[in-house]
Amino acid sequence: MVGGGQGAFIGAVHRIAARIDDRFELVAGCLASSAERAHASAKELGLDSDRSYASFAEMAEAEAKRDDGIQAVSIVTPNHVHADAIIAFAERGIHVICDKPLCDSLENAERVEQALAKSEALFLLTHNYSGYPLIRHARSLVAGGELGPVRAVRASYLQDWLARPLEQEGQKQAAWRTDPARSGAAGGLGDIGTHAFQLARYVTGLELKRVAADAHIFVAGRKLDDHAEVLLRYDGGARGSLTCSQVAVGHENDLTLGVYCENGSIRWAQENPNVLTLVQPYGEPPRLLTRGSGALGDWAAAATRIPPGHPEGYLEAFAQLYRDMADRIDAKLEGKSPSAGAAPLPDITDGMAGMRFIKAALTSSAADGAWTDC
Amino acid sequence: MVGGGQGAFIGAVHRIAARIDDRFELVAGCLASSAERAHASAKELGLDSDRSYASFAEMAEAEAKRDDGIQAVSIVTPNHVHADAIIAFAERGIHVICDKPLCDSLENAERVEQALAKSEALFLLTHNYSGYPLIRHARSLVAGGELGPVRAVRASYLQDWLARPLEQEGQKQAAWRTDPARSGAAGGLGDIGTHAFQLARYVTGLELKRVAADAHIFVAGRKLDDHAEVLLRYDGGARGSLTCSQVAVGHENDLTLGVYCENGSIRWAQENPNVLTLVQPYGEPPRLLTRGSGALGDWAAAATRIPPGHPEGYLEAFAQLYRDMADRIDAKLEGKSPSAGAAPLPDITDGMAGMRFIKAALTSSAADGAWTDC
Amino acid sequence: MVGGGQGAFIGAVHRIAARIDDRFELVAGCLASSAERAHASAKELGLDSDRSYASFAEMAEAEAKRDDGIQAVSIVTPNHVHADAIIAFAERGIHVICDKPLCDSLENAERVEQALAKSEALFLLTHNYSGYPLIRHARSLVAGGELGPVRAVRASYLQDWLARPLEQEGQKQAAWRTDPARSGAAGGLGDIGTHAFQLARYVTGLELKRVAADAHIFVAGRKLDDHAEVLLRYDGGARGSLTCSQVAVGHENDLTLGVYCENGSIRWAQENPNVLTLVQPYGEPPRLLTRGSGALGDWAAAATRIPPGHPEGYLEAFAQLYRDMADRIDAKLEGKSPSAGAAPLPDITDGMAGMRFIKAALTSSAADGAWTDC
Amino acid sequence: MVGGGQGAFIGAVHRIAARIDDRFELVAGCLASSAERAHASAKELGLDSDRSYASFAEMAEAEAKRDDGIQAVSIVTPNHVHADAIIAFAERGIHVICDKPLCDSLENAERVEQALAKSEALFLLTHNYSGYPLIRHARSLVAGGELGPVRAVRASYLQDWLARPLEQEGQKQAAWRTDPARSGAAGGLGDIGTHAFQLARYVTGLELKRVAADAHIFVAGRKLDDHAEVLLRYDGGARGSLTCSQVAVGHENDLTLGVYCENGSIRWAQENPNVLTLVQPYGEPPRLLTRGSGALGDWAAAATRIPPGHPEGYLEAFAQLYRDMADRIDAKLEGKSPSAGAAPLPDITDGMAGMRFIKAALTSSAADGAWTDC
Repeated sequence: MVGGGQGAFIGAVHRIAARIDDRFELVAGCLASSAERAHASAKELGLDSDRSYASFAEMAEAEAKRDDGIQAVSIVTPNHVHADAIIAFAERGIHVICDKPLCDSLENAERVEQALAKSEALFLLTHNYSGYPLIRHARSLVAGGELGPVRAVRASYLQDWLARPLEQEGQKQAAWRTDPARSGAAGGLGDIGTHAFQLARYVTGLELKRVAADAHIFVAGRKLDDHAEVLLRYDGGARGSLTCSQVAVGHENDLTLGVYCENGSIRWAQENPNVLTLVQPYGEPPRLLTRGSGALGDWAAAATRIPPGHPEGYLEAFAQLYRDMADRIDAKLEGKSPSAGAAPLPDITDGMAGMRFIKAALTSSAADGAWTDC
Repeated sequence: MVGGGQGAFIGAVHRIAARIDDRFELVAGCLASSAERAHASAKELGLDSDRSYASFAEMAEAEAKRDDGIQAVSIVTPNHVHADAIIAFAERGIHVICDKPLCDSLENAERVEQALAKSEALFLLTHNYSGYPLIRHARSLVAGGELGPVRAVRASYLQDWLARPLEQEGQKQAAWRTDPARSGAAGGLGDIGTHAFQLARYVTGLELKRVAADAHIFVAGRKLDDHAEVLLRYDGGARGSLTCSQVAVGHENDLTLGVYCENGSIRWAQENPNVLTLVQPYGEPPRLLTRGSGALGDWAAAATRIPPGHPEGYLEAFAQLYRDMADRIDAKLEGKSPSAGAAPLPDITDGMAGMRFIKAALTSSAADGAWTDC
Repeated sequence: MVGGGQGAFIGAVHRIAARIDDRFELVAGCLASSAERAHASAKELGLDSDRSYASFAEMAEAEAKRDDGIQAVSIVTPNHVHADAIIAFAERGIHVICDKPLCDSLENAERVEQALAKSEALFLLTHNYSGYPLIRHARSLVAGGELGPVRAVRASYLQDWLARPLEQEGQKQAAWRTDPARSGAAGGLGDIGTHAFQLARYVTGLELKRVAADAHIFVAGRKLDDHAEVLLRYDGGARGSLTCSQVAVGHENDLTLGVYCENGSIRWAQENPNVLTLVQPYGEPPRLLTRGSGALGDWAAAATRIPPGHPEGYLEAFAQLYRDMADRIDAKLEGKSPSAGAAPLPDITDGMAGMRFIKAALTSSAADGAWTDC
Repeated sequence: MVGGGQGAFIGAVHRIAARIDDRFELVAGCLASSAERAHASAKELGLDSDRSYASFAEMAEAEAKRDDGIQAVSIVTPNHVHADAIIAFAERGIHVICDKPLCDSLENAERVEQALAKSEALFLLTHNYSGYPLIRHARSLVAGGELGPVRAVRASYLQDWLARPLEQEGQKQAAWRTDPARSGAAGGLGDIGTHAFQLARYVTGLELKRVAADAHIFVAGRKLDDHAEVLLRYDGGARGSLTCSQVAVGHENDLTLGVYCENGSIRWAQENPNVLTLVQPYGEPPRLLTRGSGALGDWAAAATRIPPGHPEGYLEAFAQLYRDMADRIDAKLEGKSPSAGAAPLPDITDGMAGMRFIKAALTSSAADGAWTDC
C-alpha cells in the first residue's frame, strides 16, 4: 500500500475492503510521505519493519526483487502522487489498484496509459460504486436492450462537508482536496464529479461526447471548484446533466443516478443502495428491485454475500472490486483469461475518460459554458 | 370561466378549487371555442343559457353591462387565447384569474402587462404550487434570513406522459400542448418549466439573471421541446439548475425543489407535499416539517384546513389561491388594502418573469447554450 | 347538518367534502347544542334564519314538512347524539350521513339498526378512508383472488395529539373525546380504532370473530383508553393485530394497513395515500401502484379526479363518499338500484361491526386479554 | 469455529465479521457435524489439517492443551448444539462467541448459565443488531432520560422466505429452522422473535414481565410457529407489542423498532439502518439522525468506520460485536476491566432473558393467550 497512514481516510477503507473476502494480505507499504510517519504507521499496522518504505520508488524496486514480493499494490495517496506511483509499480509487473481519479492531470494520465500499455500488470481504478450489485444489475438491464435506447441521464453527487472552509482549520482531507498542487486543477469535479460521471458511464455504457459546465467556488478563499453543474451530450444522442457539490447543506454522500430510456427507466441512490427502482416497460408501475433478490441476474448475484433485506453498504461494494481483482490476478497466474461472465471493472479506459471529463468541464466553464469535446 | 368545457382538464380543477372554500359561484362562461360545445358544456354545468357565451369578447361585454355581472373570470384555455381574453376582461374592470403560463409569447405578454397597468382589475396567475402551505413556509424561512444567502437552487419537473407521441392519437391535452399555434414557441419549458422556475422564484425571492439551456425533442415528429436542461444564474450570485422533462419514464408529476443556503437548506417534493425537509443551522440533523404542525409560521397556518397527518394535495393548494384571491377582491370592494400579513400571490410580475424565462431558455438553446439574459 | 358549528372540527370537513363535487347544498342545520351558538354558526354559514334549528328533533320535524325540505342530513356531533339524531331523520325518510363511530354504545346502535331497517332512508357512515381510490383498488385485489387467501392483517392507527392531558386545557376536540358521557365507553378504540378495524374490514372483506385486547390509559387523570393493542382472529382463519394509540409521540395521523396473503401482499399508509405497495405473486419485486395510474381498476378510476402524480388527500377521499352517496340518492329518486359496478360504501352493517369490535375489545381488556367474541 | 461449513449461512457472516477489523484469525474449527464435511470445509478455508476437528469436544480438549490454542471460539451451529458446545469451551477457559438464540431450551440455557458462572471465559451472544451505531445511540438516548419514561414499545420482525414449505425442498437453512429437534420448541419466535425482543431490551433497558401471545403455523406440514403476535408488559408499566413472521410476503428482513416515551420517541428500521428518527421533546419536528454524524454520542462514534452518507450495513454491525469482544479479551489479558465508556454487549443475561421470552410466549399461546410471566 502506498499512502493510507496516520490521518488518512481512504487507506483504511481499502484495507477493510481487501480483508472482507480474505483474498489479500497486507505485507508491505510506503504509508506516508514522511519517513517518520510512514514507519510509525507501518508499526501500527503490524508490517515487518524491513517492508516499510520511505518512498514508493524504493518500495517498487525492493519488492520487485523479493521472491515473496507483493503481487499487487494499492495506491491511496492524494492525486498528485498517483501517476508516478502507478508507473513505478506497473513497470515492474506489479498489479496496481489505484484510488480515483486516475491522477492530477490529463498529461500525467497519458503517461500512465502508455506505461500500462507496455506492462503485463493489471490495473483497477477504485470507482467503488461500480461494485454495488444493483449497479451491476442496472448495467445489465441497459445492455440487455429491453429498456430501449437511453434518452437522458441525470447524475448528481451532493455533499456538504466543505460548506465551510474546513481546509483552513487543518482538516487533512479537506486540505489536500482543495489544494491545486495535490488535487490537480479540479476540486469537487475531480473528487466526486468523476464518480458521478463514471457511475453513468458504467451503467449506460455510453461515451460522453461534449459537456457544457458551470463550475463555481462558493467558499471564500478556496482555490478549487466546490460546486458544478454540467450538461452532457453522449455519442448516439443521449443527453444529461450532472451536478456535483460539496456545499449542498443537508446532503452527506448523496450520489444518485437516473437513466431514462425510450421504454423504461432506472433510479438508484447510494445512501440506500440496496434498492433500485425499475420502470419497464413504459406505463407499468415502478418495481423495487432489492439486493440479493431472485429477480436479479448473474452479475448481481456474484456480487452478493448475504440474503436480501440484510443491508450491504459502501465497504462491501468496495470489497467487491478487490474480490474481482483477485479473480483477475488468479486467472492471469493460471494463464487464463478472466471469466467471460464477470462484470467489467473500472480500468485505465475509464480512468482516461474521467480525466478527459474533468478537463473538458473545466475548459467549458472557463469559456463561459461553451460546449467542449471530451 | 373561459375554456374548461367538455374534454378539458384544468377547467374542472379550477372549478373544484373555487368551490372548496365556498367563496365563488360559477354563473357565466364561454366554455369552449365552438359555440356548440360551449353551450353543451354550460348546460352540463347548470349555467343559465343566457350566460353561456360563444366568445370571450361577447362574454366580457355582456357581463360588464349586467348589474349582476361576474366579479371575476377564470381563463383556462390553451395559451394562445390567454392574452386577448385577459385584456378583454381587465379592460372592463373584471378581475382575472388565469392559468399559467401567462400566454403564448413575450410580445403578447407585454400587451397584457400594459392592459393590467391601466386597469383596476386584480390579476392572479395560477401557479398553483405556491398555494402549498409548506411552500409558503419555505418562502418565509428564506426571507427570514436564518438560512443565510442562497447559494444554489435545484429545481426539476419530471413527467412521462409524453414519452410517446400521444398527440398523434388524438389526446386533446397532448394535442394543444405540442402545437406551436396554441402553446407558443415552448413545449415542456412553458407547460412545466415555468412551474419549476416560479416555484424557485417564489421560495427564494431571487430574480433570474441569465440562463444557459439545452432544450430537446426526443419524440419523433414532435414540434416543441419535451426535455430541457437549464443552468441558472441569479442576481446576487446564486446558481442553479432546472430540468423539465415530459419523457422521464417513471415520473408522474415529480416537481422538486432544493434551496441551498450558506447556513441551511430546504427540500420539498410535490408528490408528497405535506413534508418539507429543513436543515438549519448547517451541521444539525434534518428536520421534517409537516403541514399543519405547530412548528410552522402564519402563512402556512393560514393556508391549512385540516390537522397534521391528514394529507392535503393538489386541489387544496389550488383552492388556496382562489381563497386568497377572494380575500383580495373583498378587500378591494371594501376599499382596504390586502392584509399586510398575507402571503404573496403569483401575479403579472411573476407572469412576465416566466415569459422572459421561456424566451431566454429557447434563445440560449438555439444559440448552442450561450448564456442569455432573462 | 347536525353539529359542526363554531369550534367544531369534523363539521367543516364534511362541508368541504360535500362541496368538492358540487352534489350537495347546505340549506338547514342544527349546528350546535346551544341555541345561541347554533344560530350564530348558521349565520356565519349563510343559512336562512328560519332553517337554523335549536334541536335536531325540531329540525327533523320541520324539514320533513317542507316541500323544499332537506333530502339528506349530515350528523357530525359527538357520539352520544348520533343514535337519536339518526333515528329522528331516518324515521322521516331523510337520508342520513353520519360520522363514525356509529354511536356511543352497542345498545344504542341496535336501536339505530332497527330504525333504519324500517325506513326507506339511505345511510352512510363516513369511514372516510374507504373513499381513497387505492383502498378501493386494494379491496378489488383481495376480492379478485389472485393474492390467495388472507393469512394475516396488520393495522395500526397512531397519533400523538393526546400524549398530554389536552382535555384539561379546554381543547374542545380533546374534551368530548375523553369524556365517557359524550364519547361512550371507548376512547381511542372508538375514535381511531374503529377506523383501523373498518379499513381492514373494507379491504379484506373478512368478518372479525374474536379479539384479545390490552387497552390502557397512559395520561394521568384520563378516563378513556388512549392506547390499545388488539389481537385479531377472523372467520376463515386469518389472524392479525391492531394498534391504536393517541400517545405515540411523533405520529400525526398514521393509519397503516398490511394485508398478507398466501400469494401476495398489500401495504398502504394514509399519510402518503397516493401509493400502494403490491407484491404479487410471491417472490416478485414490490410494485408501487399510484393513484390515477392506468394499472388500477374501475373502482379506483371512478374515485379519481386528477391525473397521477397530483396528490389527492383526506378531503378528496371524504368527498368521494359524498359523491357516491349522491349517486345512491339519485338512483333511488329515479327508482333505480345503484350501479352494480359501484364500490361498496360503509353502511349500517359496518357501523354495527364497529360497535361490536369496540365492545369486544373493552370486554377482553377488562378480562385480562381473554379472547372475546365480536 | 464450530459449525459454518459447506452449505451454512451464518458461519460465513461470522468469518467476515471477524476479519473486518482485523482482530481475529481463524486457526481451528469443527466446521460440520460430519467429519468428512468438516475436513473438506476446513481445507477450503485453509485451516491446518491438524486443527480441523470432527467434534467440538475433541476440539475444545485439543485446543486447550496447545500453547498456541485458540483464545476464543465462535459457535455457529443449529441451536441444539449450542449448550454443550458453549460449556465445553467455557469450562476450559476459552472465550465463547455464540450465535443466537442462546440454545434450544430453557433447561439447557440454565446449564450454560451455570457453566459460565464458574468460568473465567467471556461470553458474547451475537444479537448483531445491537452492533449498529444508531441502536447504540438509541440506547443512550433512552438511558439519558430526556425522552422521559417509556410508555410503549413496538417491535416487529417480518420476513417472507418461509411463506412456502421451503424445508420440504431440501433448503438447508429452512430445514433445521423448522425442525424441533434442531431448533427447539420455537420456530420464528426463536429465530427472529428473540432478535426483536432483544433489540427492544437493548434500547430500552427494560425487563419484560409478562407476555400474551398468539403463535401460529400458516404453512401446512410445518411443525414450528411461522407467525406470532405477542403483547408485552414491562417492569415499570411500559406496554408493547411484538410481531414476528416468516410468511409476511413482501418483507425480506424487516426488523423495526419504535420506542414511545412521555417526552419523545425513537424509530428505526434495519433495512435502512443508517437513519434513526428522533422526536424530542414532544411537539418538535422529527429529526433524522444519520450514522456517523456529529449529532451522535460516544457509543455511536466508537462503532463507526466511515463518514456519514456512506452506508454501513449488516456485516459492519456484526463486525462491531467482534471488535468489541476483542477489546474485552485484550482488557482481560492485560488484567484491566473493560472500558467504562464502552457500550454494553449482549451476554448470558440477555441470552437467558431471550430463552424466558421464548418459553413464556409459547406457554401463553398454548394457554389461549393468557398473560404469562417471563
